[in-house]
Amino acid sequence: MTRVAVVGAGAVGSYYGARLAQAGHEVHFVMRRDHDAVSAGGLTVRSKDGDFRLEHPHVHRSAEEIGPVDWVLVGLKATAIEHARPLIAPLLGGDTRILLLMNGLGLEEIVGGWFGPERVFGGLAFTCINRAEPGIVHHIDYGAVTIGHHRDDSAALDGALALWDGARVEVQRASSLLLARWRKLLWNVPFNGLAVTAGGVTTDVIMGTPDLRAAAEAVMREVVAAGNADLAAHGESTRLDPDADVTAMLAATEAMEVYRPSTMIDFVEGRPLEVDAIFGEPLRRAHDLGVSVPYLELLTALVRALDPARRAPR
Amino acid sequence: MTRVAVVGAGAVGSYYGARLAQAGHEVHFVMRRDHDAVSAGGLTVRSKDGDFRLEHPHVHRSAEEIGPVDWVLVGLKATAIEHARPLIAPLLGGDTRILLLMNGLGLEEIVGGWFGPERVFGGLAFTCINRAEPGIVHHIDYGAVTIGHHRDDSAALDGALALWDGARVEVQRASSLLLARWRKLLWNVPFNGLAVTAGGVTTDVIMGTPDLRAAAEAVMREVVAAGNADLAAHGESTRLDPDADVTAMLAATEAMEVYRPSTMIDFVEGRPLEVDAIFGEPLRRAHDLGVSVPYLELLTALVRALDPARRAPR
Repeated sequence: MTRVAVVGAGAVGSYYGARLAQAGHEVHFVMRRDHDAVSAGGLTVRSKDGDFRLEHPHVHRSAEEIGPVDWVLVGLKATAIEHARPLIAPLLGGDTRILLLMNGLGLEEIVGGWFGPERVFGGLAFTCINRAEPGIVHHIDYGAVTIGHHRDDSAALDGALALWDGARVEVQRASSLLLARWRKLLWNVPFNGLAVTAGGVTTDVIMGTPDLRAAAEAVMREVVAAGNADLAAHGESTRLDPDADVTAMLAATEAMEVYRPSTMIDFVEGRPLEVDAIFGEPLRRAHDLGVSVPYLELLTALVRALDPARRAPR
Repeated sequence: MTRVAVVGAGAVGSYYGARLAQAGHEVHFVMRRDHDAVSAGGLTVRSKDGDFRLEHPHVHRSAEEIGPVDWVLVGLKATAIEHARPLIAPLLGGDTRILLLMNGLGLEEIVGGWFGPERVFGGLAFTCINRAEPGIVHHIDYGAVTIGHHRDDSAALDGALALWDGARVEVQRASSLLLARWRKLLWNVPFNGLAVTAGGVTTDVIMGTPDLRAAAEAVMREVVAAGNADLAAHGESTRLDPDADVTAMLAATEAMEVYRPSTMIDFVEGRPLEVDAIFGEPLRRAHDLGVSVPYLELLTALVRALDPARRAPR
């Protein structure tokens, strides 16, 4: 049995933490808003793969109550990354490893800088998970997690994958975490971006509107170009495939249930958008590498303009 | 004295009609929403150049009440162009001329197709005019009108310019109406488009936000490229200047009062947006001519998605 702490127990963090608890691990959730509801009523997962429920999960108001664990799962929004350090620090022992279940580029660099790169892993959840009422998570579609090590250390990655043995989660090995991050952006940039800028629409609207779908595809091709330039600049030999990867992602989205991307939910609920991690950092790297990304430029400018965190002070 | 009828007496139509009445012409306004208010209370223009007021303007509920006139000023939204024909037809005599004070490309072709091209003129108002309460027009900034003949007939254009002799309106001669239309789009595409897609913002926000301003400039360069290809395809020798025209338009916008572009007002008030005339037709021509316009593609797709006329049925 492994001791696990979940920091940032929103929809994604709660879901994967619950899956590890279901598999028999000792999982501790740091919760604020939902603390009392989950403490009293448990944590329910309504999953397309079958519902389940943790009757008495370990719920805490702070990381200090938990102390050192074997694994920290971080499900924070990228916008909260600057607050992550004091949330994670009390959970660390000498061998504690950290799995960032977060969107965007550049997060492992930040967390690795605080706590040492060798213990940092990235997990990319390609899944449709929303949170509704406190204590209830809706797992709507997909669910696989691609995990990579910040330094692509193969032996370290073996250990990270072993955590999920016996858990009802499909885990995929990312021999290049950077490639995996860019492949995730291949979906998040167009669909999170267009879902917001087209007025708060679901993925089926984008796929069903010819010029929005064409825009999604154009954005994807730019992300491929930027990602491949970034991979090359990092000395990696792997690349995104401009045809196969784009086609596969479009087909997966076509087959997806009606879905509200996380940034679109943040937008309609007036919460800060993950602008820098999903849009700003990829754009910055594209510019640095001289890759032409006009769609990404405009999309980023508009998402930034629409960010409730930015508009609020006006 | 010339008999003039104003069809589509919104802010722009009312303003220029009022200027002609002020100059001594017999101006008839076709009004629906504001008919009673203007009939009872007159038409007031609050202008940066000095307020004035028509105490007893000729106001009509229908064009049939007016009969044939010398000039028809059409201030309709481009979205209403399909309804324009029965509004204009009763006003036509053998020598009646039509001035379209409207945004966008392709409108003269439509109206010329109905009533003959030789009597059709385009007027491009570079001005900031809004309507507030019924019967009151706010003329905020600028105000010049560039007028061209649909077939660029120089003698016909002389007559059109003569209408404005003595009126307090700066009138500019467009030896190429197509060039003038594209020059107007150079402003309308970026600023109307970004004001909507950035969430309903004023021009000063676009100019004051570095990545939105950069986006405006990128859109302008695409409009220049598309416009120049379109001018060449029409056998015209004139061109937009990719440096001077863009720089001049940015400087004029920089110096502009805080302004809500018409499409942004339509957007926040839930009215149909002039998508095809301002965005769709220029995009279609760019595509036909093989001009690369990624910014315009995305902007058009988003404005179309945000168009209340489109979203309503959902």
